[in-house]
Amino acid sequence: MEREEIFLRVRGRAPLVHCITNTVTINDCANIVLAAGGSPTMANNPQEVEEITGRCDALVLNLGQIDGERVKAMLLAGRRANELGHPVVLDPVGAGASRLRSETAARLLGELRFSLIRGNASEILSLLGKSEATRGVDAAEGDLVCEENLRERARAAQALAEKTGAVVAVSGAIDLVAGAEKTAAVRNGHPMMARITGSGCMLGCLAGAFLGACPQEPFEASLAAVAAMGVCGEIAAEKTLQSGAGTGTFRMHLLDAASTLGTAEYNRRTRVEYIL
Amino acid sequence: MEREEIFLRVRGRAPLVHCITNTVTINDCANIVLAAGGSPTMANNPQEVEEITGRCDALVLNLGQIDGERVKAMLLAGRRANELGHPVVLDPVGAGASRLRSETAARLLGELRFSLIRGNASEILSLLGKSEATRGVDAAEGDLVCEENLRERARAAQALAEKTGAVVAVSGAIDLVAGAEKTAAVRNGHPMMARITGSGCMLGCLAGAFLGACPQEPFEASLAAVAAMGVCGEIAAEKTLQSGAGTGTFRMHLLDAASTLGTAEYNRRTRVEYIL
Amino acid sequence: MEREEIFLRVRGRAPLVHCITNTVTINDCANIVLAAGGSPTMANNPQEVEEITGRCDALVLNLGQIDGERVKAMLLAGRRANELGHPVVLDPVGAGASRLRSETAARLLGELRFSLIRGNASEILSLLGKSEATRGVDAAEGDLVCEENLRERARAAQALAEKTGAVVAVSGAIDLVAGAEKTAAVRNGHPMMARITGSGCMLGCLAGAFLGACPQEPFEASLAAVAAMGVCGEIAAEKTLQSGAGTGTFRMHLLDAASTLGTAEYNRRTRVEYIL
Repeated sequence: MEREEIFLRVRGRAPLVHCITNTVTINDCANIVLAAGGSPTMANNPQEVEEITGRCDALVLNLGQIDGERVKAMLLAGRRANELGHPVVLDPVGAGASRLRSETAARLLGELRFSLIRGNASEILSLLGKSEATRGVDAAEGDLVCEENLRERARAAQALAEKTGAVVAVSGAIDLVAGAEKTAAVRNGHPMMARITGSGCMLGCLAGAFLGACPQEPFEASLAAVAAMGVCGEIAAEKTLQSGAGTGTFRMHLLDAASTLGTAEYNRRTRVEYIL
Repeated sequence: MEREEIFLRVRGRAPLVHCITNTVTINDCANIVLAAGGSPTMANNPQEVEEITGRCDALVLNLGQIDGERVKAMLLAGRRANELGHPVVLDPVGAGASRLRSETAARLLGELRFSLIRGNASEILSLLGKSEATRGVDAAEGDLVCEENLRERARAAQALAEKTGAVVAVSGAIDLVAGAEKTAAVRNGHPMMARITGSGCMLGCLAGAFLGACPQEPFEASLAAVAAMGVCGEIAAEKTLQSGAGTGTFRMHLLDAASTLGTAEYNRRTRVEYIL
Repeated sequence: MEREEIFLRVRGRAPLVHCITNTVTINDCANIVLAAGGSPTMANNPQEVEEITGRCDALVLNLGQIDGERVKAMLLAGRRANELGHPVVLDPVGAGASRLRSETAARLLGELRFSLIRGNASEILSLLGKSEATRGVDAAEGDLVCEENLRERARAAQALAEKTGAVVAVSGAIDLVAGAEKTAAVRNGHPMMARITGSGCMLGCLAGAFLGACPQEPFEASLAAVAAMGVCGEIAAEKTLQSGAGTGTFRMHLLDAASTLGTAEYNRRTRVEYIL
């Protein structure tokens, strides 16, 4: 399916996206799903997540602020979504930053099938046992994707894709979207995205909406979501910098862009290159 | 009391509103209470909620993201507020969307007395055992209030009001505010309100502030709050659309409107019709 | 160190700030740390907080919405930070408003060493056993710092500083920053800061970033943070009032100011007076 068609399907089908996610960015996550045309449900009680996810079109599991109950909810919802063939997104926030996060990510990867794994470079490398020491929730500098290590990092992402059967999206100055058979680099986005909390979490949930609208084409849907997020970041940064404003304004413009972006601008701005 | 007088009392009395609510929209809820002139306290630990609610003027119980501890806190705080004669608002988020939510709503309705029950059409119908299958946290299309089913839906809301002794507010394109003896339709608001998360939760907490300022007149206070929220939504949507902006900007303007709305504009815009 | 130099160090060193805080304002807290140039990690699981805090530069403990697990996490993280000599900030939200909050504040003060205690006048007086009954999370009117009681309140803050070894910052129309040996009044800020939720919590986390960048000079770093927050509040209020906007816009401008403030404006606006 064409990227533009996927983008329009999110608005046309209004997929219901079940997100089990952290409290830091949960509001922005719900708002970006709504902005893109989906409908978010942020339920995390083990007693109801199977029922909730059964009525949804996609499930997003985000490892920020996990505890025993949250992990239990993720496993229950994940198994149900797997049974129903619903797309499941893993956002391994902080994998590598603590043993708890790394072990939880490994456990979820062992027990569930994912359509998409989305993280920053350190988180993705950590899932392969290769990261430099992750410092907090941001990627370590030595882990970042740049023009020099682009193919090497693409191969690492592709290795994770082969191992898990999931599409793997690596967020950074250059984004990578890797499937077992092909990998694309996306040169959209803006450094301001790293100056607010939640850009990564929002992309994970946005991708949930795209996958919920196009469950048969996880690679194309993931790529379309990564490109859309980058394009929204660019538009928001341009507006913010034109008015000399700061990160508060940027965050508002980012949600604005997600809710008003048209296909013409989406197509015109998207910079995707297949590299593997 | 005149609607305008109630509106001014919120600013004059600065009611303390105790909210036990979900993490998705908790920040917006606190901010709209502050914007309207109240003071929010978002305490949810069973060990302190009785003490906290005892010092407040109103209590709001919102069923988004409930767990055992949260429900325990709601029951403790609710009983204390009932003993003290403080207004208590129930926002049955997701009633009908999972058994847990429906059963919890039923339990709270069985054990506590509410001044106001506020929900979308599906949630309210679900409390009466009449909803179509609720899909997530948004109202099912077949449940929505429109000109054609207005009187029928008003009678349903009134039935719940009679059964519970609470005022019942149904949010949607047309809002209903039903008491045992009279029901009003409020034709304020804007579709953009459904494109951000939290419009409903915010109204529940805003109504808590209005009821806390005017505990003797729950119907009039609830109606004044529903009208105020709708008017703020209209103003925010007009400003947003004038500038070609999106849902991020709309959310900001909504809080702006709540903090700057004057009585003249409030009166001029309010469109209330008694229908039963 | 000069205040300006401290301010620049936050951007230069990008301190990692570990915050254990409430869900009401957690997003704003993370965003203001990022805006100032730091990097926030909002981890609160007892299983990982020691590891997380060990990799960070400062720790902030905020008592909003505490439960047993959160307090356990605070004690574990606090002890680890104390062992490593990392700055630890206490924000005793609601101390005096419930027995649970007061007892938890007392317990943390008994078991941990703090670099900074930041609260409103009622919270700080409550830690000294001297507050009027705190009503919710806002300071009681009789507790507020004003020109008439400035020296008396400064002596109270200094008494807490002597007793605990921490710098004590009292937020209000006039802010106080008290060390065992000197106390400054800061006449920056704007009343609009009290009309949004989170101004206090944000200052606590911002101070964590300043202390993380300058751990050797807790008094100067705390003072620099208090002044920076006040200056950002002033700038945000001026922009908001110029455009006739409300509290939603103010909140956005506050984060904008934190992310764009330059040293020239910071120096020009800062109004610090040593009073003890």
